[in-house]
Amino acid sequence: MTDTAAPTDFTNDPSATSWVESADGHPDFPVQNLPFGIFETSDGRVRGGVAIGESILCLPASVDLLGDEAADLARLADARDLNALFSKGARAVSALRQAVFRLLTDGGRKGEAQGHLHQADACELHVPFTVGDYTDFYSGIHHAVNIGSLFRPDNPLLPNYKHVPIGYHGRSSSIRVSGTEVKRPTGQKKPAEDGGDPGFGPSERLDYELEMAIWIGEGNALGEPIPIAEAGRHIAGISILNDWSARDIQAWEYQPLGPFLAKNFNSTVSPWVVTMDALAPFRVAQPERPEGDPLPLPYLLDRSDQETGALDVTMEVYLSTKAMRDAGDEPHRLSRGPMTAMYWTAAQLVAHHSVNGCNLRAGDLLGTGTLTSGEDHGKGSLMELSNGGKTPITLPNGETRTFLEDGDEIIMTAFAERDGFARIGLGECRATIAG
Amino acid sequence: MTDTAAPTDFTNDPSATSWVESADGHPDFPVQNLPFGIFETSDGRVRGGVAIGESILCLPASVDLLGDEAADLARLADARDLNALFSKGARAVSALRQAVFRLLTDGGRKGEAQGHLHQADACELHVPFTVGDYTDFYSGIHHAVNIGSLFRPDNPLLPNYKHVPIGYHGRSSSIRVSGTEVKRPTGQKKPAEDGGDPGFGPSERLDYELEMAIWIGEGNALGEPIPIAEAGRHIAGISILNDWSARDIQAWEYQPLGPFLAKNFNSTVSPWVVTMDALAPFRVAQPERPEGDPLPLPYLLDRSDQETGALDVTMEVYLSTKAMRDAGDEPHRLSRGPMTAMYWTAAQLVAHHSVNGCNLRAGDLLGTGTLTSGEDHGKGSLMELSNGGKTPITLPNGETRTFLEDGDEIIMTAFAERDGFARIGLGECRATIAG
Repeated sequence: MTDTAAPTDFTNDPSATSWVESADGHPDFPVQNLPFGIFETSDGRVRGGVAIGESILCLPASVDLLGDEAADLARLADARDLNALFSKGARAVSALRQAVFRLLTDGGRKGEAQGHLHQADACELHVPFTVGDYTDFYSGIHHAVNIGSLFRPDNPLLPNYKHVPIGYHGRSSSIRVSGTEVKRPTGQKKPAEDGGDPGFGPSERLDYELEMAIWIGEGNALGEPIPIAEAGRHIAGISILNDWSARDIQAWEYQPLGPFLAKNFNSTVSPWVVTMDALAPFRVAQPERPEGDPLPLPYLLDRSDQETGALDVTMEVYLSTKAMRDAGDEPHRLSRGPMTAMYWTAAQLVAHHSVNGCNLRAGDLLGTGTLTSGEDHGKGSLMELSNGGKTPITLPNGETRTFLEDGDEIIMTAFAERDGFARIGLGECRATIAG
Repeated sequence: MTDTAAPTDFTNDPSATSWVESADGHPDFPVQNLPFGIFETSDGRVRGGVAIGESILCLPASVDLLGDEAADLARLADARDLNALFSKGARAVSALRQAVFRLLTDGGRKGEAQGHLHQADACELHVPFTVGDYTDFYSGIHHAVNIGSLFRPDNPLLPNYKHVPIGYHGRSSSIRVSGTEVKRPTGQKKPAEDGGDPGFGPSERLDYELEMAIWIGEGNALGEPIPIAEAGRHIAGISILNDWSARDIQAWEYQPLGPFLAKNFNSTVSPWVVTMDALAPFRVAQPERPEGDPLPLPYLLDRSDQETGALDVTMEVYLSTKAMRDAGDEPHRLSRGPMTAMYWTAAQLVAHHSVNGCNLRAGDLLGTGTLTSGEDHGKGSLMELSNGGKTPITLPNGETRTFLEDGDEIIMTAFAERDGFARIGLGECRATIAG
């Protein structure tokens, strides 16, 4: 890998250690990460915090320990979502995160701060933002080709794909945090043969989709597009997203206006917002487009973005069936692949979304679309792994799956690793199909 | 027209009169209407009110005049949106509206109440709800056929259309109230010939779409569908909706996931929520489906809904160009048609939307889709009136239009009329293209 051109700061220093003992060497949340989230303690209080090792630092409680500028920002975390805090913009959130870093790395301040730590496993985590609008993109080109081949064998990738960052609006109301059970949706299903009557009942082709969530921080006014060169500072951070999909409902309803009930019954996000600052060491060049692909239009093209706008993040999906859990088996890995499967950078998605004047707001969620790698072990959905349900996959215990069964749990993880830097984890995005 | 089977109540009594002089005979807001909205006075205060003639009754100020149950509800209108009030459910809102009706029809109470009236034209009106999710349906079958013929000449109405109430998610953030200027969107446009490069620039095929807005009152929990027989009580009321559309952007981006930037730059709603109670005298049977059309599936079929679930509301669209305004000309009527152009009832849209467990919330907006009648003078968009831009329409002053020019103002109105009842108006939904 070539060296990144993205600037790093002192919070990326791999030699930094925290007086929070569980933080050093923590696979997800060392002091170099410090992701933001919303947590609830057993007394029912809900507010913003920062993950550090196995603990959460309460931000509102720490106001007096963070210095003047950061204190004003930490007060905004005394809320049920992070919207007010992140609406202040990337520079403000950087300042707050840096103040938290200083507090948690200064052993002399352990006494005054440790009372504001909560054991993470004793807290309930919430969706970090109140999502005004959820947009789902389709930036995983290998996924687009794979799915396109199943729906339109003669025409997998439509002529617009390499010009337009394809996206559509999803449902805000049904976004739930990791750990929330998913109820299998009922609906109309594609007729067995063309011209026949649709079926009706619980989906028999329930699937997951491995995506990353890109959170909007500072928004833009209606009618004022975000230029590509400024798009980065509107991105608050990322989480993991499972965009559950009912393939039989989707196949019947999606023309001509796109997916609707096949998707809007539930979407699951991981609870921690990992900032672009924490990910700075893992910024890499956007993979070169294959020979013959068109150049992005000028409003999508920025040299710095092309050189540092992709993220070297690895994503994994695991399945744990009820039988596996009953037998004490470990979850089985279904796939592993890189976030660089995105045909467009996050900044390109933001610039495209607003080029028509559409206003983004703090807390808006942009899904990347399913991120399937070009390799067999990197397929980000069962639809792809089972070849449209035609070829069941076999699990280590002999069970088979084409689509999800009741009791199945899907666990997604993601992390960034690089020699000379601390590993940064995204945590988990997990949910079980009820039944 | 056959007699309606929908129950009416004392607020529909056509002989009722109000001590608010401008109300009696008012074309939109007689005392039989009493729609709810959010208004702002010149001192910057924003709260909920009820339109009566040329005035607005301030609900929070009237708390002591409305009786105990209604008082508690009126307090919920001391807010920047009607979400909290309408989340209490249809029966609660009915009780409040009836209390307002009693107050405004009892001449003896003029003295204590008239101080809480504001001149409507001195107030600024707002979008009545904070819209959590905006869903746009496609229930106007004549529109679907007309548009389908332009995009897919060989296949205008897809096989799912008469089975599935087709819908998709729209953008919440860019919904604006009547009177807000619309900025022409920029974006990628369909290549002149297949396989060519897309164009880029301001839309040259900017259009309006005549729709009605169906507002959700009481919502449902995630995973708990709303049965068709109960769907009616989840409907708070209706307004007029203009779903602005950039046809050149839409034609290029919409496959395979539906419209996105072609629609999400702006949607305009009228400010007053006309309740289903006010519209009770205008409930009519859903038009019979043509011979050979499939019967709706059981989850969409309810006898009472079929008998009284459609609304006898007339909608009109007017155009006023800059040249017309400069010359003092009246706006020119582009179309007039009935809301019964809906292939599905509002209750069917609600039942379908939630059949998969998707949760609706108070303030959610359901667009009907463009409502074009089966007659030439009832086409609800310029795309239809100009035959896809191929046949310009000529205005009385000699100007021609295929799509909207800068400075054009689109004015939509809607109303219900029936012998023996007061006319109920929806007010106006108007906006001008900037430039």
